[in-house]
Amino acid sequence: MALTLFEYAGFDGIDIDRVLRMAIVHDLVEIYAGDTFAYDTKGYEDKEKREKEAANKLFAMLPASLALEYRTLWEEFDQMETPDSKYAAAIDRFQPLLNNYLTDGHTWVKHGVSAEQVYERIAPVKAALPELWEFVEYVVNDSCKKGYLTASKRVKSTD
Amino acid sequence: MALTLFEYAGFDGIDIDRVLRMAIVHDLVEIYAGDTFAYDTKGYEDKEKREKEAANKLFAMLPASLALEYRTLWEEFDQMETPDSKYAAAIDRFQPLLNNYLTDGHTWVKHGVSAEQVYERIAPVKAALPELWEFVEYVVNDSCKKGYLTASKRVKSTD
Repeated sequence: MALTLFEYAGFDGIDIDRVLRMAIVHDLVEIYAGDTFAYDTKGYEDKEKREKEAANKLFAMLPASLALEYRTLWEEFDQMETPDSKYAAAIDRFQPLLNNYLTDGHTWVKHGVSAEQVYERIAPVKAALPELWEFVEYVVNDSCKKGYLTASKRVKSTD
Repeated sequence: MALTLFEYAGFDGIDIDRVLRMAIVHDLVEIYAGDTFAYDTKGYEDKEKREKEAANKLFAMLPASLALEYRTLWEEFDQMETPDSKYAAAIDRFQPLLNNYLTDGHTWVKHGVSAEQVYERIAPVKAALPELWEFVEYVVNDSCKKGYLTASKRVKSTD
């Protein structure tokens, strides 16, 4: 997806090969930390701690140079401050939007996610893939109409 | 996996960034052609035809330059003649070995796959990741002992 949509990138300075590495590496820590649902506010409370511990455990298995590369990519992705990580994170947030839209709002419905929450989550897409933003708005609006998203802010914790 | 094991690559001339693109692109045709099981001899009869049709349909959706890049990577992967594709294909064949070994021989048992068939399939690993070959032999031997693989050549067609 990062490769296919690269022509729509909204800013310069993106090294697409580095983005691919970042996309590959960015959620390896979930092997030990588990996947924290994007709208699970309770899960987010200790997400950083859990993922840091997972990273220490995981990257310690690698040769030093590879460990450094993976850790750098992972931290950079999370901070979303560089062109590479802004683009990679936008792709990472755009994808579940499509997945949910094409599965009758599967996880949105399950957790009672609102349009407001989705907009907050996918905000990085606006700058990273500006030509696709109109499509994003269409998807969110249509998802509201179809009942995939709630109008008001509401989310169930996973526990 | 391609990135993590790159230090074990057994020959020069590999462009690892290109390998990552190749790994990402190489089975996109399965969207339309389906995944043909590695030991399904009947499925392999029309695999090339099915995948070519799928490629034509799929790549036609892309801008010309991207279509050309994806098609080139896909064809190169299948031909296994260049350093990039020899390494990428070896990774692609090494991975299911691990998956099957770590799941009590899941698809091997299901289809009655033999050690001989696995050795034929994973032969590219020997040249591409020579330092890992001893481990491959251990896995195959242990899988025979544990009954994940049959001693004689036998495979059920999927139909």
